[in-house]
Amino acid sequence: MKIAVLPGDGIGPEIVVEAVKVLHALDLSFELETAPVGGAAYAALGHPLPASTLKLAKDADAILFGAVGDWKYDNLERHLRPEQAILGLRKNLGLFANFRPAICYPELVGASSLKPELVAGLDILIIRELTGDIYFGQPRGRRIATDGNFPEAEEAFDTMRYSRPEIERIAHVAFQAARKRSKRVTSIDKANVLETFQFWKEVVTEVGQQYPDVALDHMYVDNAAMQLVKAPKKFDVIVTGNMFGDILSDEASMLTGSIGMLPSASLNASNQGLYEPSHGSAPDIAGQGIANPLATILSAAMMLRFSLNQEEAALRIENAVKSVLAQGLRTPDIYSEGTTRVSTIEMGNAVVKAL
Amino acid sequence: MKIAVLPGDGIGPEIVVEAVKVLHALDLSFELETAPVGGAAYAALGHPLPASTLKLAKDADAILFGAVGDWKYDNLERHLRPEQAILGLRKNLGLFANFRPAICYPELVGASSLKPELVAGLDILIIRELTGDIYFGQPRGRRIATDGNFPEAEEAFDTMRYSRPEIERIAHVAFQAARKRSKRVTSIDKANVLETFQFWKEVVTEVGQQYPDVALDHMYVDNAAMQLVKAPKKFDVIVTGNMFGDILSDEASMLTGSIGMLPSASLNASNQGLYEPSHGSAPDIAGQGIANPLATILSAAMMLRFSLNQEEAALRIENAVKSVLAQGLRTPDIYSEGTTRVSTIEMGNAVVKAL
Ligand SMILES: CC(C)[C@H](C(=O)O)[C@@H](O)C(=O)O
Ligand SMILES: CC(C)[C@H](C(=O)O)[C@@H](O)C(=O)O
Repeated sequence: MKIAVLPGDGIGPEIVVEAVKVLHALDLSFELETAPVGGAAYAALGHPLPASTLKLAKDADAILFGAVGDWKYDNLERHLRPEQAILGLRKNLGLFANFRPAICYPELVGASSLKPELVAGLDILIIRELTGDIYFGQPRGRRIATDGNFPEAEEAFDTMRYSRPEIERIAHVAFQAARKRSKRVTSIDKANVLETFQFWKEVVTEVGQQYPDVALDHMYVDNAAMQLVKAPKKFDVIVTGNMFGDILSDEASMLTGSIGMLPSASLNASNQGLYEPSHGSAPDIAGQGIANPLATILSAAMMLRFSLNQEEAALRIENAVKSVLAQGLRTPDIYSEGTTRVSTIEMGNAVVKAL
Repeated sequence: MKIAVLPGDGIGPEIVVEAVKVLHALDLSFELETAPVGGAAYAALGHPLPASTLKLAKDADAILFGAVGDWKYDNLERHLRPEQAILGLRKNLGLFANFRPAICYPELVGASSLKPELVAGLDILIIRELTGDIYFGQPRGRRIATDGNFPEAEEAFDTMRYSRPEIERIAHVAFQAARKRSKRVTSIDKANVLETFQFWKEVVTEVGQQYPDVALDHMYVDNAAMQLVKAPKKFDVIVTGNMFGDILSDEASMLTGSIGMLPSASLNASNQGLYEPSHGSAPDIAGQGIANPLATILSAAMMLRFSLNQEEAALRIENAVKSVLAQGLRTPDIYSEGTTRVSTIEMGNAVVKAL
């Protein structure tokens, strides 16, 4: 089992090291190799996704990823900025299926902005398409307009697009995931305005006919942004495109109040995957030893389940995380009165102990 | 002062009639003319925005709009569906500047999904560009792909675009609005991924230099969707494009818990405007006399202020609404124990009395 370890920027290195510690504590043998990515890779090798890092990632069964981005790199040209690394990995490895659970742990209900009764027991799985849509659509760029509200003005443009097989494969992922849960899928679109999402809705509906045991409904993206706030527990599996998924998955994570707990997985057709916390690189707290490593540790669990076929080890990690929460251990982001404040390293050690 | 009254579908007629009642109770003289729009217009005249309705709207100083949409019309071809009326009005009248306040009334703090301390005193103004972006960008449609992840597959596509003057004019609207408030503007983009929004960010920054007294910051749309949940009161004026504005303004409205209270205005360069509640047509409760007319009544107040130059009358209406809330009158959507439940008509009458 070959794992590429890409710590990245900000708190990335601190949290990844804890996840690696947890992996080593299992009775499994991995081949781990680390490489720079993001701003750290730009600083060391002049590019956020150096060829050597990309090769390592391609050759691995799975990638354990920290986070990228730091204010230091904000003024670089776009193609050199840290986030290009993550876009490049998604594209080059064909990681089209992004799994973003939004789970509210019972002990952490109080951390949510929402009233406790609205989030207690929350367990949504957002499935976001990750290699299509306006993120990668061509053509894009700048030009002089020839029509529109101001013909002859300078303009910038991008292309939103989805092809039938792109929609079909992510729909299958969603329906199959729903079969293992409560058998409900909500597909989010903007079919009332966009050609792309009218087509999306049609194709998802067609695929749905192959899953008569799964209930499918459709919702506009603006309404979904509202319903997530109003009654998030009404959702189970959500499937949507790359752009809407970016916005809604972040909104849903934040509803839990504990984004420091939420893992993510991005898979390709051969179940090779990239695993990373749902939160960012948080350069403001980097190096202080206070970052929450649990989202990354839980991402390692997803990695064992999805890419390495080690369901049992995945469950061991997930149970260990539940147990440290039950023990009352908390990094500062999830601390509340009456619990015990611990550092990044102490949290990692506690998970190892609980395994 | 010529006002086109377009009640539309669902609860539209019931709520618009209350706003008209309030207008008539002012000591002003208006020329009001009513026309069908949306599904109602399709049913009567075969098109959601008949030429006669469009002409009436164009010739008026302002449009008082109810809401459009009903399940009855869900299976029509897209160009005949009710929402095409609102898109057509925006485009034909050049209504590029959408004002969407998200205000949490002190009496209604408890209605929010969010904890009271996070929303008490909330007062955000979202300014959404309304005639550009992917809503109207050409080309769009279906075709056989020639590149991308599945060359030769059937695909659908849309074009996102913004020209310099489109961005400049909405930025000016935002900075000028901020001058009358707390002098802070947050521009929402996705400059890390989209050419269109890299350009947006640059142009908004340039325009901002003409407003040295207004603080400008920039935020990615995914982060904005999170920060709205986490700490909505950190925002004051938000300016963004049509698509992101659609999503974020609905999310922000729902944070208040009382979307039945929130008006909106859509203006063109000559301050001609369309005024409508932020909520939809709610066909499920239409005809029951329980819809909340206050968002529409407050939209009429915005109309008096922005298009008819009647600031005093606008304030009279706004104060009357505050007074009925203080009296404890509530339609079912905002009812809570200890308050008095009233019908749509009773609420309209109470506002008239409080004027
Ligand atoms: C960093 C950025 C390009 C990325 C995205 O927009 O996909 C991030 O927001 C995410 O969701 O992983
Ligand atoms: C009905 C629909 C076309 C419209 C939009 O997307 O703009 C609506 O959601 C709105 O925000 O006014």
